[in-house]
Amino acid sequence: MEETRGVVKHVLLAKFKDDISNEQIEELIKGFANLVNHIEPMKAFHWGEDVSFENKSQGFTHIFESSFESTEGVAEYVSHPKHVEFAKLYFAYLEKVLVIDYKPTIVRC
Amino acid sequence: MEETRGVVKHVLLAKFKDDISNEQIEELIKGFANLVNHIEPMKAFHWGEDVSFENKSQGFTHIFESSFESTEGVAEYVSHPKHVEFAKLYFAYLEKVLVIDYKPTIVRC
Repeated sequence: MEETRGVVKHVLLAKFKDDISNEQIEELIKGFANLVNHIEPMKAFHWGEDVSFENKSQGFTHIFESSFESTEGVAEYVSHPKHVEFAKLYFAYLEKVLVIDYKPTIVRC
Repeated sequence: MEETRGVVKHVLLAKFKDDISNEQIEELIKGFANLVNHIEPMKAFHWGEDVSFENKSQGFTHIFESSFESTEGVAEYVSHPKHVEFAKLYFAYLEKVLVIDYKPTIVRC
């Protein structure tokens, strides 16, 4: 098992407020995805909706995974004006949010 | 933005109980990682400790990401005897757990 050099995954779990429409959620996701075009240290962006049948998601319905080369890159992203502007809007639509960053140890690719 | 065909990510967030030693945590992680050698539909396994400075991890300290080719593969994994045996041990050491599965839409690789 070896730690991947130069990769930090920034994982955000979200539950949108109940009165938000699917169209609004789509727009918010597009806005999130668009950050990758503006914030240089943000190298990759994946997202998806929960499809688990185990009922252990604690109400979280969406997951967003951004990749960086370092924790400094994450910090640069968090304080970037484009992110600050987006986050202000986005967080107003969220009922719950959870953020965890990690340097993946890859046991099998 | 297109959905990746044939990939389902199974993400587990964990907080171990306070009285668990680092050595015990290491052993549990090795046990988790070893499942990839026994459960055919489990195609990949990555894990890491939280390194976020944002203080939004809600107490979760570790993240484990397994990859499958389908939600049926996840179901096969969950009910596999090797997983059932491991999970029984593992969950006894956890204070908190959260599981979310998703089919990643890749905006940028």
